[in-house]
Amino acid sequence: MLRSNTCGELTISDLNKEVTLCGWVQKSRDLGGMTFIDLRDRYGITQLVFNMETNADLCEKARKLGREFVISISGKVIERSSKNKNMKTGEVEIEVTSMTILNASKTPPFTIEDETDGGEDLRMKYRYLDLRRKPVASKLMLRHQINKEVRNFLNNEDFIEVETPYLIKSTPEGARDFVVPSRMNPNEFYALPQSPQTFKQLLMVAGYDRYYQIVKCFRDEDLRADRQPEFTQIDCEMTFIEQEDILNTFEGMMKHLFKTVKGVELTDFPRMTFDDAMRLYGNDKPDIRFGMPFVELNDVAQNQGFKVFDDAELVVGICAEGCSEYTRKQLDALTDFVKKPQIGATGLVYVKVNADGSFKSSVDKFFDTQKLKTWADKMNAKPGDLLLVISGEVNKSRKALSELRLEMGKQLGLRDNNTFAPLWVIDFPLLEWDEDSKRFHAMHHPFTSPKLADLDKMNTAPGDIRANAYDMVINGVEIGGGSIRIHDRDLQKKMFDLLGFTEEEAKAQFGFLMNAFEYGAPPHGGIALGFDRLCALFGGSESIRDYIAFPKNNSGRDVMIDAPATIADAQLEELFLNTVKPVAKG
Amino acid sequence: MLRSNTCGELTISDLNKEVTLCGWVQKSRDLGGMTFIDLRDRYGITQLVFNMETNADLCEKARKLGREFVISISGKVIERSSKNKNMKTGEVEIEVTSMTILNASKTPPFTIEDETDGGEDLRMKYRYLDLRRKPVASKLMLRHQINKEVRNFLNNEDFIEVETPYLIKSTPEGARDFVVPSRMNPNEFYALPQSPQTFKQLLMVAGYDRYYQIVKCFRDEDLRADRQPEFTQIDCEMTFIEQEDILNTFEGMMKHLFKTVKGVELTDFPRMTFDDAMRLYGNDKPDIRFGMPFVELNDVAQNQGFKVFDDAELVVGICAEGCSEYTRKQLDALTDFVKKPQIGATGLVYVKVNADGSFKSSVDKFFDTQKLKTWADKMNAKPGDLLLVISGEVNKSRKALSELRLEMGKQLGLRDNNTFAPLWVIDFPLLEWDEDSKRFHAMHHPFTSPKLADLDKMNTAPGDIRANAYDMVINGVEIGGGSIRIHDRDLQKKMFDLLGFTEEEAKAQFGFLMNAFEYGAPPHGGIALGFDRLCALFGGSESIRDYIAFPKNNSGRDVMIDAPATIADAQLEELFLNTVKPVAKG
Repeated sequence: MLRSNTCGELTISDLNKEVTLCGWVQKSRDLGGMTFIDLRDRYGITQLVFNMETNADLCEKARKLGREFVISISGKVIERSSKNKNMKTGEVEIEVTSMTILNASKTPPFTIEDETDGGEDLRMKYRYLDLRRKPVASKLMLRHQINKEVRNFLNNEDFIEVETPYLIKSTPEGARDFVVPSRMNPNEFYALPQSPQTFKQLLMVAGYDRYYQIVKCFRDEDLRADRQPEFTQIDCEMTFIEQEDILNTFEGMMKHLFKTVKGVELTDFPRMTFDDAMRLYGNDKPDIRFGMPFVELNDVAQNQGFKVFDDAELVVGICAEGCSEYTRKQLDALTDFVKKPQIGATGLVYVKVNADGSFKSSVDKFFDTQKLKTWADKMNAKPGDLLLVISGEVNKSRKALSELRLEMGKQLGLRDNNTFAPLWVIDFPLLEWDEDSKRFHAMHHPFTSPKLADLDKMNTAPGDIRANAYDMVINGVEIGGGSIRIHDRDLQKKMFDLLGFTEEEAKAQFGFLMNAFEYGAPPHGGIALGFDRLCALFGGSESIRDYIAFPKNNSGRDVMIDAPATIADAQLEELFLNTVKPVAKG
Repeated sequence: MLRSNTCGELTISDLNKEVTLCGWVQKSRDLGGMTFIDLRDRYGITQLVFNMETNADLCEKARKLGREFVISISGKVIERSSKNKNMKTGEVEIEVTSMTILNASKTPPFTIEDETDGGEDLRMKYRYLDLRRKPVASKLMLRHQINKEVRNFLNNEDFIEVETPYLIKSTPEGARDFVVPSRMNPNEFYALPQSPQTFKQLLMVAGYDRYYQIVKCFRDEDLRADRQPEFTQIDCEMTFIEQEDILNTFEGMMKHLFKTVKGVELTDFPRMTFDDAMRLYGNDKPDIRFGMPFVELNDVAQNQGFKVFDDAELVVGICAEGCSEYTRKQLDALTDFVKKPQIGATGLVYVKVNADGSFKSSVDKFFDTQKLKTWADKMNAKPGDLLLVISGEVNKSRKALSELRLEMGKQLGLRDNNTFAPLWVIDFPLLEWDEDSKRFHAMHHPFTSPKLADLDKMNTAPGDIRANAYDMVINGVEIGGGSIRIHDRDLQKKMFDLLGFTEEEAKAQFGFLMNAFEYGAPPHGGIALGFDRLCALFGGSESIRDYIAFPKNNSGRDVMIDAPATIADAQLEELFLNTVKPVAKG
């Protein structure tokens, strides 16, 4: 045994014990004839004390230790004179009697402290040092804890974990696959899974009843800040169930996670249809930590001579409580915000419902006080509130106002990271129309079941068919989504027809699943939760990258190991491949 | 809720309950005016009964159900007249009052029974049907249970699971990598990990102290029956430990698994040095469910005029207890066995120690009774035993005799699948000489630590240096292996020198890990266990393929989904790749 204890466990009840600790030198300070060292390991920090008077040699040696040196010390647990009540180990220190330097360290390229002086790039290159910092380490510990509780819950609910393969087959639908050339099967490629979707459905056909897997998935997409080429999914599927069973099961799981990991009791999840979510929040993943719902104003704001509104498909506003005192500058900033290209509104109309009952708006020229009052009434505004109104094409206006609502929520402190507002968004449309290809696409995937009540719209109004599809949303973040699957061959055929597949095309793309469905496929459905995102939600962070031990940057590179990299010609030859030099664009 | 109960839970205590069950039609039989159906789901089988007298329509409908149809039924739990005490549900049946056909099924291509009429190829193509068979399903359930208990144990021991990346960098050492072309980084490739070795060492440098992961690994090797291109590893690493700590921890884990999963109390694991294992069993993973150790006979068998022995480096034998009555035919079969090319002995000498005390051997011409008796004494043979002796070059003879020993163990019923004999093989050599390249290779990997006591052999006899490396062996199967790693830069440099690396080469191949070692690397070490093989051991099977839901065949193909497959030209173009037609050999 190299140590008798960790750096996180000794307390006043261990006084006078002879102990041996190992760890890293966090910091060191000389005070009078003493040298104090904070010794750190995963479990905590314990203070060491070296005394120049009683053991000059050892104290000299201690004074030469650099930050991040790895040492082993033996000594006696004694009471500290100046106690730190904020730390478990803060009442004791170790009077060191012997020390071994287990390893030296060069000076790290950035400080290993909660607040570091290292920039993102440097920290990524030396990720193994960044991982030593407590805020980073605690995120990975949190991830482990959530993983554990997910398993506890699902195991307890009779789900079994089944590992599905990573070397599968490329499918032309959906996002781009990463592919893996096969040496044994020249000129053929495996694909890395974007999700185990088809395999989990096959497991249901095989009778496994309740399946889960915490599994890596891969998408070769152009990366944004919150995307990674490899990400982790909690993938689940159930048999002999209806939508209600899935919602209840996974609402239960989320309550279990919040309770066990964060000590938070979640309320029952409200449910909102996709249509309501779009109408009231302009968004299929509304943040309902705060209200501020959309109010459509067409009937009270149009046909009053204001051309911008009159020409608009939709006039829609929100009421920002207590914001009537917003300054010109603040209002201009909001206008600039909604006019950003990625938000896309052409302008912003405001109406101040002043505390004295008077009104002041950016459209006073067109609307008198009485008119503005009808708006205010419709929006349940009180004196002191501020109305913010956007107009134009329906989808664009909703999108812009949704962003503005989130921005106002932020400005008003209504989006507290320690408040959690879960929600099921249900009744998603089955299909979405694609203008480019002039055909319907499956909004979820082609195996998603339509609502039986909407089946008669298959021929007349396919765009109006609702699906048995649902998303779990917490604080405006889509944590997961899923659907009840089609298990009936005739219905599946109709679905393929709607999507414009010929029977041959359907067979070529989904042949093995279609075959499986011929042999007694049970009713089934499932859900997949984004594990990285779930961890970020629990940790109160925006970035999933913080919750991944070795993430990739926005070019898909691991800068620490410098991957991807060129490979040897012999390797390419064995794989029957030639590389083609990219031609410079322009 | 589509069902009130599963098919595995209703018993006599549920009598008269109205229930709804869902499942697959396992089989059906008509008996008098009744029709009986075995309804199957993951949890079990429940008998349904339909009565032609009381409900003719329903009974007619039931008689038309084919095997593997998916149905939902409602009815009352009643007591069976002919009870099956071997099944939990065997005392009751359901008097069906209503039935819905949830899905029809074509006739499966093979019977869904414990013993099926389907060949391997057919069952792999329809793996989702094969997975319905109880012997297959129970193997995956077992796998889940072992997975769960591994986690329970390691979580309880303060290990944390950290996910390491799948898209990493190709390294020229070791087995062949699968590579993944990068679209965003043209002409560069990721590699899929053969193991998370370097990442787990980086996690130790980062201070994570105790890490584990149950993780997929990939090796592009020519496949044998017990190899898969993707396989699962229980990967672990610990900090501030010595070899003894690792052996104790993972011996503890294995005892926990055997106890919780199989109800078996394992004994303490004996330890055997690599040298002893080779000398006594000719094998670094001896099956010690039975004895039959090797006895070296050079001193008593050489220089007696038998040229075959006199020319041999080693004369070595085993004593097969009670086999002196083996027939000529049996002995010839054993000779044929050891002469097989993959076993490679040139011949087999036998000595029968007859029950009456006389001897009969295949070398009576060269050795008289008195000589043979010295052999028998040396081998502790009793009357009735059979001595089997092989001679030749040391390694070859040991290998051949090892195979013969295992074969004799099998013939004598000494290798019972329900007996478990665990073992640590320790003190592996650090290096092995490679005749082809005329240099030393690392036997485990270049970061394996030599034994401090052997450091003085670094310059004089590097081949004799023992490593702090160990294998866990159970019933002759290598379940896992690991080592204490080098954490000292100077020692690491010496190791690279021994392996013939220049500093530049070492940097190019292991640069990021070498860099990390500059910043306070702690003493650490670990182990990796083959999860598929562990499951097979628990299940008493030889083949790991049985324990993988969707395995690949010996050509690395998934015949169910037909992967790998060609991909679209556009996909290749995006990846800046051309395929090269393989040239026919010959």
